[in-house]
Amino acid sequence: MKKFINTIDSLLEDSLKGFAKAHADIVELNQEPHFIKRAKLGSPGKVVLISGGGSGHEPLHSGFVGLGMLDAACPGQIFTSPTPDQMLAAAEAVDQGGGVLFIVKNYAGDVMNFEIAAEMLEIPNATVLVNDDVSLPKTHSIGRRGVAGTLIVEKMVGAAAEAGADLAACKALGDRINQSTASIGVALTSCTVPALGKPTFDLGDQEMEMGVGIHGEHGRETLPLANASEIVEHLARAIDEELKPQPGQSVLLHVNGFGATPLIELHLIYHLAAQYWEQRGVVIARSLVGNFTTSLDMAGASLTLTLLDEEMIRLWDAPVNTAALRWGA
Amino acid sequence: MKKFINTIDSLLEDSLKGFAKAHADIVELNQEPHFIKRAKLGSPGKVVLISGGGSGHEPLHSGFVGLGMLDAACPGQIFTSPTPDQMLAAAEAVDQGGGVLFIVKNYAGDVMNFEIAAEMLEIPNATVLVNDDVSLPKTHSIGRRGVAGTLIVEKMVGAAAEAGADLAACKALGDRINQSTASIGVALTSCTVPALGKPTFDLGDQEMEMGVGIHGEHGRETLPLANASEIVEHLARAIDEELKPQPGQSVLLHVNGFGATPLIELHLIYHLAAQYWEQRGVVIARSLVGNFTTSLDMAGASLTLTLLDEEMIRLWDAPVNTAALRWGA
Repeated sequence: MKKFINTIDSLLEDSLKGFAKAHADIVELNQEPHFIKRAKLGSPGKVVLISGGGSGHEPLHSGFVGLGMLDAACPGQIFTSPTPDQMLAAAEAVDQGGGVLFIVKNYAGDVMNFEIAAEMLEIPNATVLVNDDVSLPKTHSIGRRGVAGTLIVEKMVGAAAEAGADLAACKALGDRINQSTASIGVALTSCTVPALGKPTFDLGDQEMEMGVGIHGEHGRETLPLANASEIVEHLARAIDEELKPQPGQSVLLHVNGFGATPLIELHLIYHLAAQYWEQRGVVIARSLVGNFTTSLDMAGASLTLTLLDEEMIRLWDAPVNTAALRWGA
Repeated sequence: MKKFINTIDSLLEDSLKGFAKAHADIVELNQEPHFIKRAKLGSPGKVVLISGGGSGHEPLHSGFVGLGMLDAACPGQIFTSPTPDQMLAAAEAVDQGGGVLFIVKNYAGDVMNFEIAAEMLEIPNATVLVNDDVSLPKTHSIGRRGVAGTLIVEKMVGAAAEAGADLAACKALGDRINQSTASIGVALTSCTVPALGKPTFDLGDQEMEMGVGIHGEHGRETLPLANASEIVEHLARAIDEELKPQPGQSVLLHVNGFGATPLIELHLIYHLAAQYWEQRGVVIARSLVGNFTTSLDMAGASLTLTLLDEEMIRLWDAPVNTAALRWGA
């Protein structure tokens, strides 16, 4: 395993300290329990947004804490759920009297721990469950996973909360964005979890993992390595069959890298995916390309499409000031 | 070779199209010859900044085109210098009557082609040569390479040009920032250039390349793999011996990833590097952490330190609106 690391036990702690120090104008780190919160809290009465999950997906979620997006993020150990005491402490630290909205990716551990926190929390709260990964069928026993679409939920609901939407409205909006969003990813390599010290799964030199999860989980199927156009066609078709965007429909197209895929390749993927939908009359109204929802050092990428309406475009364009997404602020 | 690619010949062209489309609010792509320019040009009389170099270092330089930074960037093929016709066409396209400042990383091909363009260009122009890589001695036959410090020159001089500094002032400022800046990098793996199809250099499982260049050039020395603290100490000492920051000196600390190193590791490196200088009384006044000057899919990172004065801090903080750096705009 070749990584910049001292010990497996100290990696997350020291990395969080570095993150908080490098972005001290935007965030603060709370020790014991760990959470990242906005350096400047929102206005009194504002609904506060809290997300979290296993680490190793940076910049998700800590990089999305700040004006117009999350109020706090709770990082677990790598690929390990955070614990309810983190969410409770974060909620109490950032509460502005308008209630707490938890944004939770659909993984059993995350769901359970956020549920416990939601039940224990003495502040009105609601939860948006994100399950945008269409690589698994809707009827899958544990449901579909939450992947790169999560940041779109966080960005848009964050803007609504900043503008004064109440808890019920934020919850309804988050559910609506989740239902309008579909993602699927492909891996060219596995990631290497530090505590394991070797790649999570084996993949031959001429193979790729289609429909991969963001924790190195096996995907829908292992396929022979294909060229970029064939890969994008495969991914885009899976999303298109799910969301069925009609000609004239405005969409947000998000190309996400899993950590080790260069921008030159991500922009190629974006070019091909944009072509795919434009040929079908779909309007690419907004775009985001980069490594945002990563899986440590995995080479691979995902496509995410969100069907947009005017409100969602306005919320996407609203000012945001976080470590990883910043505009208009 | 596992990459998202159709053909080696079409990769750059299609990727540039994707980049320009994804960031159409900020940049435009010119075909034949290739350059990226600001979608909204600056004010009449403004000095325009043009950089460029081989592709494969994204977001450098195309991701730094926009308000408060570059006016145009000329991308060559991967790790290959752009040609003088690209710089000439870019200069004519973005000229605002205040002259042209070329910002050139010190590589023989880049230097030669920018010199030819500078001589042919019928617009007053000057050149800032960036050579911040302290892994080579000052007396090296071809001089020191330009690496991650380049973006700091581009950001600060871009802010000065936006505020109305004339060509001589921009040139002097760029030279001063370059002299105040030192970088050094380390690679854990080689990158794979698509046209070559295999790693550029061999590195054992227990080895690292210290003082590596951003094109997969061999570095200062191949050393046994060490832990993060030892690596950061090694890098920081090389920079510290060069710049000799005194206690109380304000600095910008930039931790740059080479493309395949996760943010969790880059933030650990930042934490350790900040500690190194703070223990010596140096003030980390500004910070930047991320994959900005990359080397395709190389795992590795570099440290860059810039000695700051009040003017440089003001220029760093000034609004910037590019694909890869964005604040205050």
